[in-house]
Amino acid sequence: MGMIGGGKDAFIGAVHRIASFMDGQIELVCGAFSSNPEKSALSGESLYLPVSRSYASYEEMIQKEKLLPAGERMDFVSIVTPNHVHFAPAKMAMENGFHVVLDKPMTFNLQEAKELKKISEQTGRIFCLTHTYTGYPMVKEARQIIAEGKIGKVRKVYVAYPQGWLSTFLEGSNNKQASWRTDPGKSGIAGCMGDIGTHAFNLAEYVSGARVTKICADLNIVVEGRLLDDDGAVLLKFDNGASGVLSATQVAAGEENNVRISVYGEKGGIEWKQEDANTLLLKWLDKPTEILRAGTGYLSSYAKHNARTPAGHPEGYLEAFANLYTNFALTVNAVETGKTPELEWVDFPGVEDGIRGMAFIENVVASSKTEQKWYDFKI
Amino acid sequence: MGMIGGGKDAFIGAVHRIASFMDGQIELVCGAFSSNPEKSALSGESLYLPVSRSYASYEEMIQKEKLLPAGERMDFVSIVTPNHVHFAPAKMAMENGFHVVLDKPMTFNLQEAKELKKISEQTGRIFCLTHTYTGYPMVKEARQIIAEGKIGKVRKVYVAYPQGWLSTFLEGSNNKQASWRTDPGKSGIAGCMGDIGTHAFNLAEYVSGARVTKICADLNIVVEGRLLDDDGAVLLKFDNGASGVLSATQVAAGEENNVRISVYGEKGGIEWKQEDANTLLLKWLDKPTEILRAGTGYLSSYAKHNARTPAGHPEGYLEAFANLYTNFALTVNAVETGKTPELEWVDFPGVEDGIRGMAFIENVVASSKTEQKWYDFKI
Amino acid sequence: MGMIGGGKDAFIGAVHRIASFMDGQIELVCGAFSSNPEKSALSGESLYLPVSRSYASYEEMIQKEKLLPAGERMDFVSIVTPNHVHFAPAKMAMENGFHVVLDKPMTFNLQEAKELKKISEQTGRIFCLTHTYTGYPMVKEARQIIAEGKIGKVRKVYVAYPQGWLSTFLEGSNNKQASWRTDPGKSGIAGCMGDIGTHAFNLAEYVSGARVTKICADLNIVVEGRLLDDDGAVLLKFDNGASGVLSATQVAAGEENNVRISVYGEKGGIEWKQEDANTLLLKWLDKPTEILRAGTGYLSSYAKHNARTPAGHPEGYLEAFANLYTNFALTVNAVETGKTPELEWVDFPGVEDGIRGMAFIENVVASSKTEQKWYDFKI
Amino acid sequence: MGMIGGGKDAFIGAVHRIASFMDGQIELVCGAFSSNPEKSALSGESLYLPVSRSYASYEEMIQKEKLLPAGERMDFVSIVTPNHVHFAPAKMAMENGFHVVLDKPMTFNLQEAKELKKISEQTGRIFCLTHTYTGYPMVKEARQIIAEGKIGKVRKVYVAYPQGWLSTFLEGSNNKQASWRTDPGKSGIAGCMGDIGTHAFNLAEYVSGARVTKICADLNIVVEGRLLDDDGAVLLKFDNGASGVLSATQVAAGEENNVRISVYGEKGGIEWKQEDANTLLLKWLDKPTEILRAGTGYLSSYAKHNARTPAGHPEGYLEAFANLYTNFALTVNAVETGKTPELEWVDFPGVEDGIRGMAFIENVVASSKTEQKWYDFKI
Repeated sequence: MGMIGGGKDAFIGAVHRIASFMDGQIELVCGAFSSNPEKSALSGESLYLPVSRSYASYEEMIQKEKLLPAGERMDFVSIVTPNHVHFAPAKMAMENGFHVVLDKPMTFNLQEAKELKKISEQTGRIFCLTHTYTGYPMVKEARQIIAEGKIGKVRKVYVAYPQGWLSTFLEGSNNKQASWRTDPGKSGIAGCMGDIGTHAFNLAEYVSGARVTKICADLNIVVEGRLLDDDGAVLLKFDNGASGVLSATQVAAGEENNVRISVYGEKGGIEWKQEDANTLLLKWLDKPTEILRAGTGYLSSYAKHNARTPAGHPEGYLEAFANLYTNFALTVNAVETGKTPELEWVDFPGVEDGIRGMAFIENVVASSKTEQKWYDFKI
Repeated sequence: MGMIGGGKDAFIGAVHRIASFMDGQIELVCGAFSSNPEKSALSGESLYLPVSRSYASYEEMIQKEKLLPAGERMDFVSIVTPNHVHFAPAKMAMENGFHVVLDKPMTFNLQEAKELKKISEQTGRIFCLTHTYTGYPMVKEARQIIAEGKIGKVRKVYVAYPQGWLSTFLEGSNNKQASWRTDPGKSGIAGCMGDIGTHAFNLAEYVSGARVTKICADLNIVVEGRLLDDDGAVLLKFDNGASGVLSATQVAAGEENNVRISVYGEKGGIEWKQEDANTLLLKWLDKPTEILRAGTGYLSSYAKHNARTPAGHPEGYLEAFANLYTNFALTVNAVETGKTPELEWVDFPGVEDGIRGMAFIENVVASSKTEQKWYDFKI
Repeated sequence: MGMIGGGKDAFIGAVHRIASFMDGQIELVCGAFSSNPEKSALSGESLYLPVSRSYASYEEMIQKEKLLPAGERMDFVSIVTPNHVHFAPAKMAMENGFHVVLDKPMTFNLQEAKELKKISEQTGRIFCLTHTYTGYPMVKEARQIIAEGKIGKVRKVYVAYPQGWLSTFLEGSNNKQASWRTDPGKSGIAGCMGDIGTHAFNLAEYVSGARVTKICADLNIVVEGRLLDDDGAVLLKFDNGASGVLSATQVAAGEENNVRISVYGEKGGIEWKQEDANTLLLKWLDKPTEILRAGTGYLSSYAKHNARTPAGHPEGYLEAFANLYTNFALTVNAVETGKTPELEWVDFPGVEDGIRGMAFIENVVASSKTEQKWYDFKI
Repeated sequence: MGMIGGGKDAFIGAVHRIASFMDGQIELVCGAFSSNPEKSALSGESLYLPVSRSYASYEEMIQKEKLLPAGERMDFVSIVTPNHVHFAPAKMAMENGFHVVLDKPMTFNLQEAKELKKISEQTGRIFCLTHTYTGYPMVKEARQIIAEGKIGKVRKVYVAYPQGWLSTFLEGSNNKQASWRTDPGKSGIAGCMGDIGTHAFNLAEYVSGARVTKICADLNIVVEGRLLDDDGAVLLKFDNGASGVLSATQVAAGEENNVRISVYGEKGGIEWKQEDANTLLLKWLDKPTEILRAGTGYLSSYAKHNARTPAGHPEGYLEAFANLYTNFALTVNAVETGKTPELEWVDFPGVEDGIRGMAFIENVVASSKTEQKWYDFKI
């Protein structure tokens, strides 16, 4: 793995590294950790990389790694830069033969995402988008339960992602995370909806198995002086007739990262909350609610494949993230060696999720601006 | 107290009786428990009433009780009939000198509610509407905390009321509760929104202290053949600039009566769930969340006045309901004896809550039918 | 009902009244609320009793009520005095034809309890001991599940009752509750173990269906100057081969009234906590844990009989207490009218529970004093 | 790192590897994964080790690695074999200059532990014992809170570790984990108490800061045919005057790995449960309970140092385990380079914890066999 971005002090870069190291399947062999060559070198040093493989830019990294022999050069890049620097390195990496792991949202705008899809198809490179929450075993279990029809036809989807960390004008102080995420030039046309709304959207479609067809959005800038939405709620209509509510906010003072989802069908419902990630509630119309737990023997092959420890040993965010990396690596390895990857391996977010996420951003911003209630979800 | 409606097998009539008996301040002295005189008599008998005070109709009850001497006749009526039989008995009772406790929603339509308000003002009769959830001590505490500005200016209100009991076409079988609640001739123009949406709306305004000014509603009939909405979600705008989301559904299979509210301000937030009714979470931007508990010494006078036992002895739905009755009785008694009731006593839902609740029903139905996103909340 | 003790400011007297009023089956007709005749009269007045039926002493009450005609005189006494004034009024009441509800623990010592048992047998009077926690519907459900063998043979019982209110030397200030409960002359030979340890013991035997045969107790006086134990833990052996741990403390600073029980059998286990009283967890060796909830249709007749509202409307401590009173009243009424009470009605704590509770106190104190590990549970 | 034991199918070996890889500070360079050389080689291959560094025995590994140049040879061994193969490899590794990470309990018996302590002192090698639970950030926070006197003098300690996986005679089937853990020849003189009781004991002493001085143990063999205890409860006395209860069981059917601790002092208490590992409850006598959360800014340096992600991103068992490895590695690195390790780094379980754990096993077994109540905790 070669990393683009994610130098010291970058929150998500460190998370990607932990996630990729955890299962002993992926090795960091090189990086272009910063647009500042000195910082990049320092980061590489602290990560025990040889000097020669800390590059001054991603362009240099891609070019030079390409020249290395097959067993030695990086197999894929992991891109963990702000949104406006997603497309170019991903494009260049794929066009030079490297697979790509990319932090969400996919690109700066929908147009770029569509182009990346084409490049991925043309180059045959494998693409993984890190929508972490669908890496949790009990989220996968929820999806399986619904896919198998256990709770009947889906009728209602509630998904919420409240955070509180942007309750003040944090971008006014020197907070790196807050600064780029609230900057239209780096984040894109949406703030909260791009940063965490896309996670909620992806979770809703992944778990329910249904696709959003119409939306009605209310986006707000709550904190004075902010340039992008920091709060929003969206009414949803799905292709199977279900309706739903998506809310995402970064000004719910006192909330941490409380993403959760409930889906109800004709016969029952499921409920999952990241703060109790190893538990999935399975509710029934006329029977006791069941508490399904990660690591147990009664779960689906998808949930089992994505857990490392027996029930009662909590796995968390980093393991969910690692599931994306490990499934991506298993798939890459299978494909590279001419094998057919298992269904459980290829179950990681890819190009299609990226496109829909970028479409969500564009649609939700457009809907928020119209006077019309229902806005068709367009790609 | 004289009861109108609430004969045997009536769910809410029994609840009203328990709630009124609990604190030993109110005695059931008469009733017109059913439109069927025989059933009314049987109900009266099982409630240990003398035969002479089980009346064949509410009209008879009001007329005959009025003739009894002051210490002997009922002081107020409790009306627990379906919505289409709220207005007439309430009007007649007030016009004949009796105070009124009325089950929510106030009336069959907004027009009746406005008229009842006038009658209440003209007759000086005291009126209590049983929005149970605002009777919980920790809901009162939440209101106080926000009113005192502890969490800063309110920015966001989430209120949800999911139930699952109407997930099937229950009105097709012989279920009395389901039948009238889904019958436009008895329930009014709304089903779910009238039955439980009004509770959620009342809770949101009571706790936040803000008033809804615009709404955007999505009402659904999910179960085939049903005549009124059984599900809905509403985006909210408040007079103080806050926004919110209200969801209410009766088709969330596996949910019981899971009403809950979260309100966030500039500095923190509160969270309350009926299923853990004696707990109020108080969240802070930079400090640990606090768990406030009913029955403790550190609460406001409002929370203290509405609890009967020391912390750790859970009080529930019936006690919350009893708080309405007892506060109503304390107020009636004070007024009747020329005293000024305490602020904590008069803090029960009244005419204004009733009017706004009926307006909610009419606005939410109208909003749901328009193509326009934001609908002005009109009274 | 005639009440002995429980005047103004008495915590448990008010609880008994609420519990007895709630279901509209019991009426307070007289009382001897205090050993001070003036205070008794004032209490009677505030409870809307006629002056003639506020008595100066329980002796007077029993004698005078006995002379009243059958339909008018009290049917039973409710005794809510400190422990040293349990035996004499209970004895006198039964010997004069009145049934008895008595606050726990039964008496001042085991000898008195045994004598009371004899009197109850001789007079045929019905006796109810208010071990509140076994009045909860989900505690009854737990007992039924175990009695029906669903979790297999019981192997392990954990019961805990932590409180924190005696963490300081509260009896040094003017706290009435603390004063008598820590006074060997009023409370008996045990403090914490008599006050709440007996509840835990009763709960353990009621739910598990097994009987304690050996104990190993560690009682402590944690707060300096206190005269009776305020903390303790007891290892238990049961007649069916199971073992267990009982802990009870009143110095767990920050705890309210956190009584809870877990029982494990060969195939599964149950878990109940008063702080979430409407929930019973049913755990299985190889299947998801089930969340059983009060008010649902799938419960046993015992749980159903003891709930008033549909699932999702929390009932609490006062309702559990009311279940004791209502079942007692139903039983008294059946017996008085020559009918056979239902099995669900007679399921309230009685003489045998009282005897075993007093034996628990005596055995646990004796065990705590010996150097020997296992102490035979003697009656 | 060179690993001893932990070949394919070994539960704890895989956990050690994940934990050591996670933070990118430790590399697996060699291993003697099985006493069967072929199996060892296969394991090495699947872990991407060169053939030359998969050794046939730990003796071979230690001897050969010692001959490699300093930068190339392993720095320490990680020993993850059953208890009877702890002492010899640890001794040999230290005597040959290697630091040691050792799975708990330290050794087969107390005598070996004492000897290992001497060897560690003589060789100056650093020793880490993997008592995972003290690696959790909120457990460290609990320890700090108590050490700083925030809850006052400690009075009461409750620690419990219920599991259910040995509810049946699993060792009768071909379960590798069950077999050695219930085999006196491999596990030592205790089963449940050695396997998980030692964790509970370590947690109790680590968090409370107090040392056990007397115990009263009740150990049981619940499942017929089993050779070692599978259940037990222990009354505790501490050197500061506090008392406590430790329970550990492997026959609580339906329990997963539900280890938890509560400690109460004069002014408040703490409560931590592994199943909600990122939360620490801080209870107060007269104030609301506070919910302290991992990843927040208000925690101690110890809690902060041991978390990787901001609040709301749950970290779990593997991260707690990784904290042991990373702190050990930081300490080793500091010591090897002549620096003073930070206080937060050296806060991992070591020789003293190992000795006390082995003493716990010996004392608890001895106590269980005597008729005498209190047994002095001897080392």
